[in-house]
Amino acid sequence: MTDTAPRRRGRPSRTQSADAPAARDRILAAAREEFSERGYDKTSVRGIAKTAGVDSALVHHYFGTKEQVFEAAVEVAFSPASLKVRDVVLEGPLDEVGERMTRLIFGLWENPVTRTPLLAIVRSAVNNETAAAVFRRLVAAQLMRRIAGRLDVPDAELRTELAAAQLVGVAMMRYVIKIEPVASADPEQIIARIAPVVQRHLTGP
Amino acid sequence: MTDTAPRRRGRPSRTQSADAPAARDRILAAAREEFSERGYDKTSVRGIAKTAGVDSALVHHYFGTKEQVFEAAVEVAFSPASLKVRDVVLEGPLDEVGERMTRLIFGLWENPVTRTPLLAIVRSAVNNETAAAVFRRLVAAQLMRRIAGRLDVPDAELRTELAAAQLVGVAMMRYVIKIEPVASADPEQIIARIAPVVQRHLTGP
Repeated sequence: MTDTAPRRRGRPSRTQSADAPAARDRILAAAREEFSERGYDKTSVRGIAKTAGVDSALVHHYFGTKEQVFEAAVEVAFSPASLKVRDVVLEGPLDEVGERMTRLIFGLWENPVTRTPLLAIVRSAVNNETAAAVFRRLVAAQLMRRIAGRLDVPDAELRTELAAAQLVGVAMMRYVIKIEPVASADPEQIIARIAPVVQRHLTGP
Repeated sequence: MTDTAPRRRGRPSRTQSADAPAARDRILAAAREEFSERGYDKTSVRGIAKTAGVDSALVHHYFGTKEQVFEAAVEVAFSPASLKVRDVVLEGPLDEVGERMTRLIFGLWENPVTRTPLLAIVRSAVNNETAAAVFRRLVAAQLMRRIAGRLDVPDAELRTELAAAQLVGVAMMRYVIKIEPVASADPEQIIARIAPVVQRHLTGP
């Protein structure tokens, strides 16, 4: 604190684009915002640059193509969550993994900060093959296969995906399409019904 | 056969737009195709008219706005399926409803003819509030509430939606985002895992 705060305050003002790490973070935040609101197809590098207050060339300089901006924006949001999901699944008793996983995923969707990148992934992946490929890489390879590796059951990967499908489906109906009564139901009421199903998929008969 | 075939062959050629019922059906088929491939936002009345081989004015004449074309296109495809789903749920023993419902929904998704309008609904509803409203009206009001009405359990509507969420989630991962192994798994293997979960949601503890 004493080291960085005075330095920042005393720093001479610079052009935005010269402040590389800040501009990079701003571009990523703008990209998440644009992709989550508009979906992949309707988001442009120019629009992201405008929201971030930088030149389009800087977006290309840091990230390359629109696909690469998307992957970076999603990965930054997704990787910590992904690690956390893995930890939650790998730590603690296996016969409570359904409840732990369900609570964690609901926590991410209920929190507006993490909901935005999740909406960006879902909206984009549904309508665009490039974004779907990013989703497959991040979710399937990074997350589900590792969870499956922990399960000592036949068809562990398929089971993990069917558990994820239950969670994805609830998220679609509650947060994206907003069908009642699931959209306004108490999260605890939903978790009480979903957790045993996730548990059954992962470790049941 | 002997009645219609010669009549058709002998019919004088007419302009496409003058053949009202045929033009109307062509517009609906074109609308389903366009909405399923492009989603709601990127589909235009002009594009639908072009695919159907008619003038845009005729599309507006029959259906009104883009939203109304969407609703008509989806409803034509959805209503027979919706009635069938209801019948399947309402007929037969309640302790096998999970398997009946899962098989029926998988049948609709596995059949390319019915898959197209389903993709149109999902792709559009995820990205557009107008399309989401149509989805809510058709799926929630027409279908889920009636199934729920048959169930003699507390929270019947929420249960029905969570069962639907499992089916929607699997469809998303298998047919839309195409994550392996669920995308290529034998349907029977998936049904064997999903049907008990749907049953549990609808009639379980």
